[in-house]
Amino acid sequence: MNKLMKSVSTIVLLLSLMLSGNMKAQSDEAILKTLYETSLTKGKSYEWLDYLSNTIGGRLSGSTNAELAVQYTKKELEKLGLDKVWLQPVMVPKWVRGEKEMGYFETKGQLQKVNICALGGSVATPNGGTKAQVLEVGTYKDLETLGEEKIKGKIVFINRSWEQELVNTFQAYGGCATERYRGAAEAAKYGAVGTIIRSLSSRQDDYPHTGSMAYGDLPVEQRIPSAAISTNDAVKLSEALKKDKDLVFFFEMSCQKFDDVLSHNVIGEITGSEFPNEYMLVGGHLDSWDLGDGAHDDGAGVVQSMEVLRLLSESGVRPKRSIRVVLFMNEENGLRGGRKYAEVAKEKGEKHIFALESDAGGFTPRGFSFDCSDLMFAKIESWKPLFKPYLIHYFEKGGSGADIGPLKSDDIVLAGLRPDSQRYFDHHHAANDTFEHVNKRELALGAATMTSLVFLIDKYGTETITDEKEIKD
Amino acid sequence: MNKLMKSVSTIVLLLSLMLSGNMKAQSDEAILKTLYETSLTKGKSYEWLDYLSNTIGGRLSGSTNAELAVQYTKKELEKLGLDKVWLQPVMVPKWVRGEKEMGYFETKGQLQKVNICALGGSVATPNGGTKAQVLEVGTYKDLETLGEEKIKGKIVFINRSWEQELVNTFQAYGGCATERYRGAAEAAKYGAVGTIIRSLSSRQDDYPHTGSMAYGDLPVEQRIPSAAISTNDAVKLSEALKKDKDLVFFFEMSCQKFDDVLSHNVIGEITGSEFPNEYMLVGGHLDSWDLGDGAHDDGAGVVQSMEVLRLLSESGVRPKRSIRVVLFMNEENGLRGGRKYAEVAKEKGEKHIFALESDAGGFTPRGFSFDCSDLMFAKIESWKPLFKPYLIHYFEKGGSGADIGPLKSDDIVLAGLRPDSQRYFDHHHAANDTFEHVNKRELALGAATMTSLVFLIDKYGTETITDEKEIKD
Repeated sequence: MNKLMKSVSTIVLLLSLMLSGNMKAQSDEAILKTLYETSLTKGKSYEWLDYLSNTIGGRLSGSTNAELAVQYTKKELEKLGLDKVWLQPVMVPKWVRGEKEMGYFETKGQLQKVNICALGGSVATPNGGTKAQVLEVGTYKDLETLGEEKIKGKIVFINRSWEQELVNTFQAYGGCATERYRGAAEAAKYGAVGTIIRSLSSRQDDYPHTGSMAYGDLPVEQRIPSAAISTNDAVKLSEALKKDKDLVFFFEMSCQKFDDVLSHNVIGEITGSEFPNEYMLVGGHLDSWDLGDGAHDDGAGVVQSMEVLRLLSESGVRPKRSIRVVLFMNEENGLRGGRKYAEVAKEKGEKHIFALESDAGGFTPRGFSFDCSDLMFAKIESWKPLFKPYLIHYFEKGGSGADIGPLKSDDIVLAGLRPDSQRYFDHHHAANDTFEHVNKRELALGAATMTSLVFLIDKYGTETITDEKEIKD
Repeated sequence: MNKLMKSVSTIVLLLSLMLSGNMKAQSDEAILKTLYETSLTKGKSYEWLDYLSNTIGGRLSGSTNAELAVQYTKKELEKLGLDKVWLQPVMVPKWVRGEKEMGYFETKGQLQKVNICALGGSVATPNGGTKAQVLEVGTYKDLETLGEEKIKGKIVFINRSWEQELVNTFQAYGGCATERYRGAAEAAKYGAVGTIIRSLSSRQDDYPHTGSMAYGDLPVEQRIPSAAISTNDAVKLSEALKKDKDLVFFFEMSCQKFDDVLSHNVIGEITGSEFPNEYMLVGGHLDSWDLGDGAHDDGAGVVQSMEVLRLLSESGVRPKRSIRVVLFMNEENGLRGGRKYAEVAKEKGEKHIFALESDAGGFTPRGFSFDCSDLMFAKIESWKPLFKPYLIHYFEKGGSGADIGPLKSDDIVLAGLRPDSQRYFDHHHAANDTFEHVNKRELALGAATMTSLVFLIDKYGTETITDEKEIKD
């Protein structure tokens, strides 16, 4: 009874503040408090994520699961009583892993099995697998120096290790992501028959981590299979190579690329009460890799973005501008959803003033990264005290999110949620990106943090000239 | 080779800075960078924790495991080449769980098994168990109103739920910890035959969470058994009670209290180069509950504290003051180690100027809580920019740690490491407080954060009068 009274009185307080039209610092504090408390005590994000992760599972573009995720999230958004919910068609690539990959190395008559997975976009090995001597390099950039003589006929092993000294793990990931993306194309130029890369992981363990790779303009007949091996196996292989230069590596993969298929971005909208033609976007990507269930990457971002609109509705906040949740398809291996959304927005002349993406895991939120003018950044920084009770302190200029990148212009503020990054790459693109590694409270705090920023941007706008209008606003 | 050169040059740089006697802001930054990088790339804390958790395991005071932990950590400290390592004798309580507890409730002829564990310090049930009707209350404070008539002969079920809306989970824990500690003593006054409490956990799951309880001055013959049930079972039991007031609960426990036994605090010291008689302390507690392996509570604090002295030695920092690592025995059910250390320090007239405890889990560090004067707090706050690259922003006045509490006086600055608190009470005092829930990088960041603070306090002291001495210091 006490609790009920408390929440009734909070809602009454909130409604009276909303209706008074007098939303000063005090009322912002009250509204943020309501948003956080609602997310923590009556949030839906975790329940949605449970379904996406455990009932649907991995959602690679073009797969049946990806379509199930489209239908499920559309249906859930429809239940929220938004002003509009629709699907935006987009053609996406379809690549399938096929049979589980296998690999081993053979040294001095001994076979040592290796945990391996095809990189997304790789061709298969020839039927019966690929077997060859191994050339270890620290980076694909070493290949040019080594040249065709040393590379031809070999499997190139790119063993670039994670820079543990970097506190921001995304920086460490950025440092080695190109090895995965370009390694095979570069090695193929010099006649390699395959590439294996050390998984882009912050941890020593047995999980291989997949991720996108591409062949660029390499002719089809020159394309070579490319796989990741676990960090533990990378260490073992490297040690074995030191002792035995004649070591051979074997791997077999049956992955396959099909023609593009029709898929969809899922969009929901609360239409603005004062400026319905000004759009604010919040989103994540609905597709995921296929090895785990994609709970952190990016199930978390999907359900947090849905929760932003639910929390606003639930709290009785009627935004002045139109707020859209966009669940993008195909971030992982094509970015077709992000590109399509921006293309359609441009065609329709829709004025987007703000976009926020959550695509860095469902961990405790630390703050945001902003791609905006210095003046706008200063305006946002003035809101920092409002976030202090929720231990949100990270407000920095920087990147935002891959899916919202195509919207970039001088007129839009782009932002990315920045959760704690320490554990993210333990799970990223691997079989252990699963629901049990997401904490309910951390996920809910992220959703509330996003909603709070959306609320403030809607209320105070993205204008930065301190003229009379702004002061009245 | 490149890496080796890099670390050699870092050490050379560091040494030259140390020897120059000219340690301005620039050199503080360089030293913190070295401390963090060393902890992240060549840290020992995770390896030590692996041994404490997986080779030794749960370390309840008075157990063989607790003594193995004393011997192991002493030996490891001796390997670090500190100036002194010794054991400080302390008598500790010995309580053992005995056979695994079991419990069920019976409603309308159906038995429903319940996940249960004895609270630390509880008496056993009579041989054959305790079976009685159940009286559910929201808090032990309701018992006085209900009175003996309604309570006598019943099992009191204290079903106080976690306040999910509180961002700081320690605040939520503080809100209900007294239910666990005093519940049985209060219920026994009115003739209850047992108490069961809803686990003090931030999560709905099947783990019962133990923790200390006490009977106060209740005569031995009036003491009743007290247990925790999992949050899921608390919900089930409460729902079943609504449908069936005649429901009976059964539980059986064979826990036992023995005479106090001899144990030890483990202490290591780097003797100060300028002020050897001024002591700075860093510590955690070596004992843990018995259900899990105590990796977070407080294996993490133990190994992080050991790492502080190792990182200082490793980095060539020669502290001006004597720095002690103290691994306290018996925080969980007696605090005897903390009290003994303070008692001996007082007897010897040792001047302690600073003590820092890590006892809030091995999660990503967010900052510190300080128990000190406003002037000293302002001095500490001036160091915040040094911590910014490591995403350490939380500097607040507040409590420190249970073990260092007995040292409190006007002359000492007390501090507690404050890691991210969202997951801590998912594991606290339960069977899932285990090594695999500790992340290596998060643990190492905590150790580096502690070392950085110790370094700065040693360098700049705890004096706050801005006289000439201070400026020269």
